[in-house]
Amino acid sequence: MASGRHYGLILAGGRGTRFWPRSRRAHAKQVLRFLGQRSLIQQTVDRLRPVLPPERLWILTNDYLRAEIVRQLPEVPKRQILAEPAQRNTAPAIGLAAHILQSIDPDAVMGVFPSDHMISKPRRYLQFLRAAFQAAAQGKIVVLGIQPRWPETGYGYVEFPKNVQAGSIKPLAVRRFREKPDLKTATRYVKSGNFYWNAGMFFWKTSVLLDALREYLPKTSTLLASLPAFANRNFASKLKSVFPRCENISIDYAVLENAPQVSGFATDDFGWNDVGSWNAVYQLAPGDASGNVVRGEALAHASSGNYVDAEGKLVALVGVKDLVIVDTPDALLIAHRSSAQEVGEIVKQLEQQRRDGLL
Amino acid sequence: MASGRHYGLILAGGRGTRFWPRSRRAHAKQVLRFLGQRSLIQQTVDRLRPVLPPERLWILTNDYLRAEIVRQLPEVPKRQILAEPAQRNTAPAIGLAAHILQSIDPDAVMGVFPSDHMISKPRRYLQFLRAAFQAAAQGKIVVLGIQPRWPETGYGYVEFPKNVQAGSIKPLAVRRFREKPDLKTATRYVKSGNFYWNAGMFFWKTSVLLDALREYLPKTSTLLASLPAFANRNFASKLKSVFPRCENISIDYAVLENAPQVSGFATDDFGWNDVGSWNAVYQLAPGDASGNVVRGEALAHASSGNYVDAEGKLVALVGVKDLVIVDTPDALLIAHRSSAQEVGEIVKQLEQQRRDGLL
Repeated sequence: MASGRHYGLILAGGRGTRFWPRSRRAHAKQVLRFLGQRSLIQQTVDRLRPVLPPERLWILTNDYLRAEIVRQLPEVPKRQILAEPAQRNTAPAIGLAAHILQSIDPDAVMGVFPSDHMISKPRRYLQFLRAAFQAAAQGKIVVLGIQPRWPETGYGYVEFPKNVQAGSIKPLAVRRFREKPDLKTATRYVKSGNFYWNAGMFFWKTSVLLDALREYLPKTSTLLASLPAFANRNFASKLKSVFPRCENISIDYAVLENAPQVSGFATDDFGWNDVGSWNAVYQLAPGDASGNVVRGEALAHASSGNYVDAEGKLVALVGVKDLVIVDTPDALLIAHRSSAQEVGEIVKQLEQQRRDGLL
Repeated sequence: MASGRHYGLILAGGRGTRFWPRSRRAHAKQVLRFLGQRSLIQQTVDRLRPVLPPERLWILTNDYLRAEIVRQLPEVPKRQILAEPAQRNTAPAIGLAAHILQSIDPDAVMGVFPSDHMISKPRRYLQFLRAAFQAAAQGKIVVLGIQPRWPETGYGYVEFPKNVQAGSIKPLAVRRFREKPDLKTATRYVKSGNFYWNAGMFFWKTSVLLDALREYLPKTSTLLASLPAFANRNFASKLKSVFPRCENISIDYAVLENAPQVSGFATDDFGWNDVGSWNAVYQLAPGDASGNVVRGEALAHASSGNYVDAEGKLVALVGVKDLVIVDTPDALLIAHRSSAQEVGEIVKQLEQQRRDGLL
């Protein structure tokens, strides 16, 4: 049959070290409130609601974050918020969710969603979402491509046929998936007009995905197939022994690049932003007349273009420009906005050197 | 007689708003530990000790600071640490101290010292100090001039005769006192070679100073003369009614500019620094290989020339240069070092706007 009930898998295991010191293991990017009153994962659930009611959502996260996510999302059934027993990449996580859903609903059609992005035009987004579910229900493996706005080297790309029309709400044959390019290649991609950002949003019938895993990732597939039914009281303990043995590999690399036919939507601008650094948060937030964005209270003198996050403390800025200032009880970040991308790497390096829990 | 016991008056009523948020009313610049383990006022007492034992020191401060100064200086008799009942300029404060000393020792020779400066070569300094006391004991009004190192517009100047020799340890006739000049004038002063900075260090017999006050500041002189002896139990209450009525005027303006004969020493470099801003503290402190000066713990990546004062908190610097970062439990300052001079004015303005206790 062509239809099937829709389910959503929200991947929420990321750490978001680029948002240190606000982000910590137990308070990663997806549960932070950068803009407005709802965290990124709450915004994700809110945004999906017209297509996927919270009862149809499953969330994969880790032991550090699960309690906070349960707290933030009372509308999602608690048993559907799972902690992965080990940090693996997206293929085992998605495979696990597909196994569970398949055992609940053999006709399940699932969408996979990052938990930590923003979308400023959700109505436009939902049009593509509905079309993507429809295509997936027909047995297709489906990806949403985002029309690129600059030659980003931090994303993978989806190559569509030449002369692709952005914004067409019908599935196209994907020519190839391309891994993160160097700047020269990315520039060529963006100029070409038929390369789109791969934003990690995928749609398929669980049966289709499980078939693909069996073919392209047999070891992980066999491991996951050895799990008892989700309702079984031994499920959690079995998962603990099985999951860490799964391959540490992305779904892009394991499945999408190998599948002979993948469909994609060449979406136009629905205001997608992966909120990749403090600078992205700065860019997304409304600023004052001097371009300062402030969470908390700041007094700016001859200062412009700064991002300040220091709740519960008065911040005085004197003659400073384009800084990111994030204050927490035990750590303070002062970064130039143009260096904000480096924060995560630096923090990870520091933590390796120190081994005393920066994160 | 030409000799007389030496006394020191340390003026410690200043607020040091340029060191906000570290400086507060009850924790002003002079009691802060910027460099080393001793506060500026402790360093002042330490430095004077070879010439002025602590029993001969008197300290004038205010009600906010007195308890902290008493705590920091157990070697100075507590009764000699006085809080002025109102904020006045240096003339009433010095006049008050002269009155008290005169009643204790009619032959007293007093030196007046700021409480919040640094001197890196104290042995050289003491040579001038001894010579200055000697000249004062002979009835002279004496000032120490500091050889200028740049055309500072924030200090007054002492004009010596042409072709003055820096570093001569004998008193010279001062031609004139000059108030804070504009930059053009200051540049001319420095070029001329016979203009020295007035660093607020004065020496005189108390009897000579009291005579001068009687002549040039009769109202304040009469008011102070109406006080009972220091040992009198009504002294404090009388002071409360008398002191606020004294004129708000500096000793430079009231006496030094009017006295027909003032002697001065054209000192050479004994490492005087008035620690006028966070930038001065930065300049005085030893930095790391990247020129970062850190109190507390900071991790610097592609960052140089920064001053960090954030004890009890980890600070991460990423791609920032020449900043002053001062963190306290309720306030955080981020200033460019080149704007550090403005911090005090800005904080005073803010406080006037807010009226809720920044300081």
